[in-house]
Amino acid sequence: MLGKNRISTIQKLHQKKFRMQENLFIAEGAKIVPEILRSSFGVSQVIATQTWIEKNQDLLQNQVVEVALPQDLEKISTLSTAPEVLAICNIPEETVPEYSPGSFVLLLDAIRDPGNLGTIIRLADWFGVSAIIASSDCVEWTNPKVIQATMGSFIRIRPQYTDLQAYIEGLPKGCAVRAADLEGENLYTANYSPNGCLILSSESHGLSAYLESLVNGKLHIPRGMDSTGQTESLNVATAAAIFLGEFIRRRSFSSH
Amino acid sequence: MLGKNRISTIQKLHQKKFRMQENLFIAEGAKIVPEILRSSFGVSQVIATQTWIEKNQDLLQNQVVEVALPQDLEKISTLSTAPEVLAICNIPEETVPEYSPGSFVLLLDAIRDPGNLGTIIRLADWFGVSAIIASSDCVEWTNPKVIQATMGSFIRIRPQYTDLQAYIEGLPKGCAVRAADLEGENLYTANYSPNGCLILSSESHGLSAYLESLVNGKLHIPRGMDSTGQTESLNVATAAAIFLGEFIRRRSFSSH
Repeated sequence: MLGKNRISTIQKLHQKKFRMQENLFIAEGAKIVPEILRSSFGVSQVIATQTWIEKNQDLLQNQVVEVALPQDLEKISTLSTAPEVLAICNIPEETVPEYSPGSFVLLLDAIRDPGNLGTIIRLADWFGVSAIIASSDCVEWTNPKVIQATMGSFIRIRPQYTDLQAYIEGLPKGCAVRAADLEGENLYTANYSPNGCLILSSESHGLSAYLESLVNGKLHIPRGMDSTGQTESLNVATAAAIFLGEFIRRRSFSSH
Repeated sequence: MLGKNRISTIQKLHQKKFRMQENLFIAEGAKIVPEILRSSFGVSQVIATQTWIEKNQDLLQNQVVEVALPQDLEKISTLSTAPEVLAICNIPEETVPEYSPGSFVLLLDAIRDPGNLGTIIRLADWFGVSAIIASSDCVEWTNPKVIQATMGSFIRIRPQYTDLQAYIEGLPKGCAVRAADLEGENLYTANYSPNGCLILSSESHGLSAYLESLVNGKLHIPRGMDSTGQTESLNVATAAAIFLGEFIRRRSFSSH
C-alpha cells in the first residue's frame, strides 16, 4: 500500500518543476495505461487497485507494480473521477530531429492551452505528421491535461521543444515555412506545395512577431458557405484540424 | 444589490430543467456579453459589477441592469474566474427550418459533450452552415459550457432539436444524407456533391443504429501522411472541423 510520503511524492509530479527534476510524468486511466504497457514506452511504475492488477496480469510482466486503495488514487489523480490505474512514465531523452526533405513538420508557436496541445498531438498522430517542433513557451507535453487530451497519441508522437527561430534558420534551403494566419492567402485556392513546415500560433496572439520575417507565406481558412460566418477566429486545435486536413489532401489525395 | 434569494434563483439556471421552465439561460463574461448586447438577441437582465456598468453605459440602453458584488458573481458563475458581467438571456422560440435546396445542413447525433457541441457551433458559424439539426439526446445549447465554448457564435447559429429520423424522412427527394463514419469512403477522393446533410455522431458510439438505413453514404477521414497514424479515432469536434473544411472547399473553392 502507498504511504503518505509516497503519495505526496507522486502528487508533486503534477508540477512541471518536479517532472523535469525526476524525468517522470503521470498517465492515468484504464484506456491509456494498457496502451502504454503494450508499447515500448518506458514505464517506471504502475499504481493500481488490487482488482485492476488481478484482471491485468498479462500487461504487468516485468513491471514494478504498487497496489493502491481507491482513495489513494483519488488523492493522486487529476481527473474528476479517479482511475483504477495510473502509470508513472519516464520522459524519454530526445533531440530535435533534422528536417527530412519532402516531409511535413508542424511548428507550434506559444501554444499554452493543454487541451489544445493534446488535441494537436492526437491529430498529428492520426495524420502521421513526421514531427512536431514547439517553441519553449508552449505547454510541456508531460502536463497531465495534455496527456489526457492526446488519448495515448503521445506514445507515438511528442513535440520537441526548441528555439523556433534557430530551427527555421537551420532548415535546408528551399524548405518552405508557412504560417496559419488570419491575414494569409486562402488555404484552399493558394498555390503551394504541402511539404515543409507549417506554424500554428495561439488564436489570441497570432503569429509571434519574431517569426514574421522567417515565413515564406501565410495561409488562412476562408469563411462562408451558404451565408457569411461571423465568428472572430477559430480555436487553434480546430484550425489545426482544418489545416492538416487540407495538407494531407494535397499530399496524398489530389492530382494537383 | 442581489439578495440571497435572487442569487439562488439565478443559480438554478445552471440546470436544464429550470432553463426550460423559465425559458432563460446565462451567458458570462466581458467578451460574450457585449457581443450579445450589440446584437438583437433577447436579453432579460444584465448583472454586473458597478465598475463594469459605469464603463459600458453605451451598451446598457434599454436593458434591465442589476448591480452585483464580485463575490455574488462568483457564486453565480460557472467559470473558474468569476466574470464582471453576465447576461440572463431569453431562449428564442424557434422551429426546425425546412431544408432549402442546395444548402448544407449539419445533423448531430447524440453529441453529449458540451465542449464539443460549442466548438461545432463556432465552426458552423465560421463556415456559414445554413442550419444545425440535433437529435433530442444531444446536450442543449443553453448549457453553460456550450455557451462558453461557442465564443458567442450561438448568437448567429443554434441547433434545433428534433427527431432526426423524422427530419431525414421529411427531406426533399434527392437531398443526400451522408454520415461521418470510420467505415466510410475517403472524404477526399470519394465522388459526392457537398450539398445536402452530413451527420456527425459521438466518437465513442459511432452512428446510431436507427440512422444506418437512412443515409446515402458514409465518409471517413483518411489517415497517414509521412507515416501511418495509429490513434483510434478523432474527437467529434476535430472531425467536424476536417469534414466542414472539405465540404466548404468543394462548395466554394474547387473547380470539380
